Amino acid sequence: MAMDHAAAEVDHLAAERAAARFDVEAMKVAWAGSRHAVDVADRMARLVASDPVFRKDNRTMLSRKDLFKDTLRKAAHAWKRIVELRLTEEEAGLLRQYVDQPGYVDLHWGMFVPAIKGQGTEEQQKKWLPLAYKFQIIGCYAQTELGHGSNVQGLETTATFDPKTDEFVIHSPTLTSSKWWPGGLGKASTHAVVYARLITEGKDYGIHGFIVQLRSLEDHSPLPGVTLGDIGGKFGSGAYNSMDNGVLRFDHVRIPRDQMLMRLSQVTREGKYVHSDVPKQLLYGTMVYVRQSIVADASKALSRAVCIAVRYSAIRKQFGSQDGGPETQVLNYRTQQSRLFPLLASAYAFRFVGDWLKWLYTDVTQKLEAKDYSTLQEAHACTAGLKAVTTSSTADAIEECRKLCGGHGYLNSSGLPELFAVYVPACTYEGDNVVLLLQVARILMKTVSQLTSGKQPVGTMAYMGNVQHLMQSKCAVKTAEDWLNPAFIQEAFEARALRMAVNCAQNIGQAANQEEGFYERSPDLLEAAVAHIQLIIVTKFIEKVQQDIPGHGVKEQLQNLCNVYALYILHKHLGDFLATGCITPKQGALANEQLGKLYAQVRPNAVALVDAFNYTDHFLGSVLGRYDGNVYPALYEEAWKDPLNETVVPEGYHEYLRPLLKQQLKLSRL
Amino acid sequence: MAMDHAAAEVDHLAAERAAARFDVEAMKVAWAGSRHAVDVADRMARLVASDPVFRKDNRTMLSRKDLFKDTLRKAAHAWKRIVELRLTEEEAGLLRQYVDQPGYVDLHWGMFVPAIKGQGTEEQQKKWLPLAYKFQIIGCYAQTELGHGSNVQGLETTATFDPKTDEFVIHSPTLTSSKWWPGGLGKASTHAVVYARLITEGKDYGIHGFIVQLRSLEDHSPLPGVTLGDIGGKFGSGAYNSMDNGVLRFDHVRIPRDQMLMRLSQVTREGKYVHSDVPKQLLYGTMVYVRQSIVADASKALSRAVCIAVRYSAIRKQFGSQDGGPETQVLNYRTQQSRLFPLLASAYAFRFVGDWLKWLYTDVTQKLEAKDYSTLQEAHACTAGLKAVTTSSTADAIEECRKLCGGHGYLNSSGLPELFAVYVPACTYEGDNVVLLLQVARILMKTVSQLTSGKQPVGTMAYMGNVQHLMQSKCAVKTAEDWLNPAFIQEAFEARALRMAVNCAQNIGQAANQEEGFYERSPDLLEAAVAHIQLIIVTKFIEKVQQDIPGHGVKEQLQNLCNVYALYILHKHLGDFLATGCITPKQGALANEQLGKLYAQVRPNAVALVDAFNYTDHFLGSVLGRYDGNVYPALYEEAWKDPLNETVVPEGYHEYLRPLLKQQLKLSRL
Repeated sequence: MAMDHAAAEVDHLAAERAAARFDVEAMKVAWAGSRHAVDVADRMARLVASDPVFRKDNRTMLSRKDLFKDTLRKAAHAWKRIVELRLTEEEAGLLRQYVDQPGYVDLHWGMFVPAIKGQGTEEQQKKWLPLAYKFQIIGCYAQTELGHGSNVQGLETTATFDPKTDEFVIHSPTLTSSKWWPGGLGKASTHAVVYARLITEGKDYGIHGFIVQLRSLEDHSPLPGVTLGDIGGKFGSGAYNSMDNGVLRFDHVRIPRDQMLMRLSQVTREGKYVHSDVPKQLLYGTMVYVRQSIVADASKALSRAVCIAVRYSAIRKQFGSQDGGPETQVLNYRTQQSRLFPLLASAYAFRFVGDWLKWLYTDVTQKLEAKDYSTLQEAHACTAGLKAVTTSSTADAIEECRKLCGGHGYLNSSGLPELFAVYVPACTYEGDNVVLLLQVARILMKTVSQLTSGKQPVGTMAYMGNVQHLMQSKCAVKTAEDWLNPAFIQEAFEARALRMAVNCAQNIGQAANQEEGFYERSPDLLEAAVAHIQLIIVTKFIEKVQQDIPGHGVKEQLQNLCNVYALYILHKHLGDFLATGCITPKQGALANEQLGKLYAQVRPNAVALVDAFNYTDHFLGSVLGRYDGNVYPALYEEAWKDPLNETVVPEGYHEYLRPLLKQQLKLSRL
Repeated sequence: MAMDHAAAEVDHLAAERAAARFDVEAMKVAWAGSRHAVDVADRMARLVASDPVFRKDNRTMLSRKDLFKDTLRKAAHAWKRIVELRLTEEEAGLLRQYVDQPGYVDLHWGMFVPAIKGQGTEEQQKKWLPLAYKFQIIGCYAQTELGHGSNVQGLETTATFDPKTDEFVIHSPTLTSSKWWPGGLGKASTHAVVYARLITEGKDYGIHGFIVQLRSLEDHSPLPGVTLGDIGGKFGSGAYNSMDNGVLRFDHVRIPRDQMLMRLSQVTREGKYVHSDVPKQLLYGTMVYVRQSIVADASKALSRAVCIAVRYSAIRKQFGSQDGGPETQVLNYRTQQSRLFPLLASAYAFRFVGDWLKWLYTDVTQKLEAKDYSTLQEAHACTAGLKAVTTSSTADAIEECRKLCGGHGYLNSSGLPELFAVYVPACTYEGDNVVLLLQVARILMKTVSQLTSGKQPVGTMAYMGNVQHLMQSKCAVKTAEDWLNPAFIQEAFEARALRMAVNCAQNIGQAANQEEGFYERSPDLLEAAVAHIQLIIVTKFIEKVQQDIPGHGVKEQLQNLCNVYALYILHKHLGDFLATGCITPKQGALANEQLGKLYAQVRPNAVALVDAFNYTDHFLGSVLGRYDGNVYPALYEEAWKDPLNETVVPEGYHEYLRPLLKQQLKLSRL
């Protein structure tokens, strides 16, 4: 399973690769973003794959304790390699990604450090960041509580200022105020950014962040007043169980006043609460950053699952044999294609919209620095919505890929159960997807309500300004091929999204009050938000394939995939398009017909299109997805590694099977 | 967690229960089918819940070996109790169900014994069944191979008759011919019904069943020429890992001729292959039986997940607090209702269609005995399709229920990860759902093609005979309330299903040949098959609520749920209904409006509607789904049981954390 490309003796997928009608190396560049990106990723992936410490093929068989210890080992080893090899930040990030095991370092780098950077004063940054950069402290991000997730304003932990000692007293007043879920909190972290209600001079100023030391730096024992533990096993074997998601309770723990993160507001020595002149909009920048990285992760997870399912579908054969001849490759079945190729297209679609979100983050940052907040709301809606749609689609798609591998996809050795279990929390963390989509819907409703006042929507909402045309427009498609015209696709998606939003706004308008109307119509609002976000994904894919893309046949392949994605969404949500009158039933049928033709064009290129992701067998971690396609001998070999096969006659035979078979059960004690 | 209703001190859901507008005890009877069914199930559930051997709250923490040993223990103990208490067959089946842990007994009773009953001669039954009934032998069902799943005719294992010794030689000629997946095969079974290509007089007569002894009855070691093992870990912790799905290879293993299952065909002493006069249609009876039990299981699994999600949604509060007042119960949100209540309705829908399938099985059996094969094809399509649709919907719904519980649904202590992982293979075993739906589609196409010849379709396809009307009919709905009229629902579903089938038939008719057309249109055919099956589910639910159902308010609740189910499906598949012109966009919007009103009516009854499933806390196995709703203290307590919490400072601290924190990583060996 850990065998790498070079070592493969026979390539069972050689015929598939030879049939591809485009330059795979050039597609790798298109996927990764640049030649440099391909090279550095390749180097880091191989570095990890060739290092026995990073072995992960036995991960699903480890006990919780051994798995956690393995995570600590890998994290330390990775850090050692990063230091020894003097890796750049980019290289270090990729190395950690290819180690591919959730652990405390993810939160240390991904949440603790950014929180201090974003919310700490310069002085605080100068004090704490060097410690974090060198791992002299390990930090996590303690926000969520046992009884409070999405609603941050409902958190119960208190930080009460004591002017007598110039300290905050951090306290967990109830069971439900226990911090619950933060990654790295349970066992590894020495420090946390803790979110708590700031109380000073008897007044509650709401939620603020505080740097709190949790464990002794000498022996790692919890400090007085601090109760720490792991919250227990989670979905799947291996998967996210390598992470010590933690529970934390405070019993009047005191911290110096200067450990409140004070960039946006301060408490003075006297206990006065004051705002700084730093605009709080700056915090949105961090949110946009975190969510764009989640969208990038979605395309990574989805492409892994698709890579496994496509390769195995080319190897697996079933039915269709004529008089004992070979059976048909499963990948040739239209039903398999119609389920799998849209997911392949989605992987590319999410990749390109993720690239665009990176640009958006830069743009937002620059505008924030110039105190231009004009696009902030739109950028927030766009990233929140893309986070929701891409993570939900990806979770569903990984499970669909697993089913597309038949029974063998259910084996841990297929890699797909763990990939699903480790991925699916992305639908819940950093904003529950339903909550996020309702935020998008709220901004959509606001935008619709302002259309009549002549306020022009910006960015990804600009199309809504074209309301006169889009409410009336009739789709001009007459033949199946017409659906290959991006202008027709674009307009149909714009009209659908706008009309759904306007419908919702009209229905809300008929309610007794706006809030009541919003509440009653929230299921419809979710659908309108999804339609708006799908339009963004389609638009960014279309824009991508309108650029110059070097390499023989590369652009043509991406055009195909773009059309597959758009027409698949259209078919899946046909009810939206028909109900809003954007297209006719006949045009819907033509789109479906064209979709079938596109699948036939994807078919010979499918294996090469997943090769372009450039994943090592180590990273894929799947017997079914092996680069060389030598699946069955590998499955057979993997089986014997299960601990249950250590003995031929199982433990428990003498106690529980033999007495049964010998009719002596009544005599035996169970 | 194992706390039972009686022991609960405070009922956090008391207000919910008091608000219900119907008689819960009467609903229990409606759900279970009879007062007797409620009582016996209740008795068996409590018997299991009160027995410490059947404890399962630590199951996800056990290693594979300990989990398997635990399964052997529970199976032996269950059998001991069954014998001691002289339980009836019904009671014994229920007891095994409430033990709720997959194991070899499932295959012994569910596949091995029925195979001998269905395919063995009277003499063979007389010899083998008493041994199986007393567990003097343990049997499994060895059909699937490493390289061959759905396509049974492609199996490679051979059974070659040797007239010299009057024996069959069972052999695995290739790696891909290894038997792979059979439950109970890996470690527990002593015998198997093995499916192999029968070869005699140099001719291959295709797949037949053979009783083969695999292990010594003295010491359980594999017999000479037999290689046996477990195929390795599967999706999830706990879950299906309690089962020893096995791999089996034969190296020229000899069995007596009379161990071929000879009810339908025989090989004579001379090696002649002859058919008996028993019609092979009898085998369909078994298939209908197995699949109707899978539909019954679907409603059981779905109702468990829904019970957990509904109860926890009534406990969990989020947002909506006014000035520090209590937050809103999640169950009050329209978005939560619109995702959860259709699943609650589906649980009831699948339950009632499952009851009806039991009747169908009896009907089919009687007709087969009378050599009346006129309804066999329709019954086959109906059970195959219902198996596919209910299992796919249930798997998706369990995962949706998990997401509806927010972050905590991801914890093993919620019970939902294991419920999903243990359930989802139902989509693949006993006929992959896509393969089954294509079989349904084939029968639909045949039925459509015979409509013009005047052949009247029967049973669940009878509506297709009404083709003249249904192809032209216009839905008469004018108000949202009109959608409460079952006649309107029924006709819309019939018209949609028929028009989709006719569309497919017409498109296939335009292809160069029928097979090519069927292949090209197979994605559309899947959708047509689903539409037909959904019509059956809706029809059987409507028929159910048109019966007399005793108990205050019970019938009204079921009518509500029936309407929720139908209108939810209509909304979800709106594209079908609009594209075929069965309803107008306006009528679709009215259906959606009515759906919202129905949710409001379900809301006060939701907790009581899941109480009616009458599940013990032991069977539910969920901290979130506790009957008493005392969720948060229980979650907190569960956490500390994780092995990772055995020490405050984790194992690996001295090797991997301290050197990192002390900047001594280079000195340490990792």
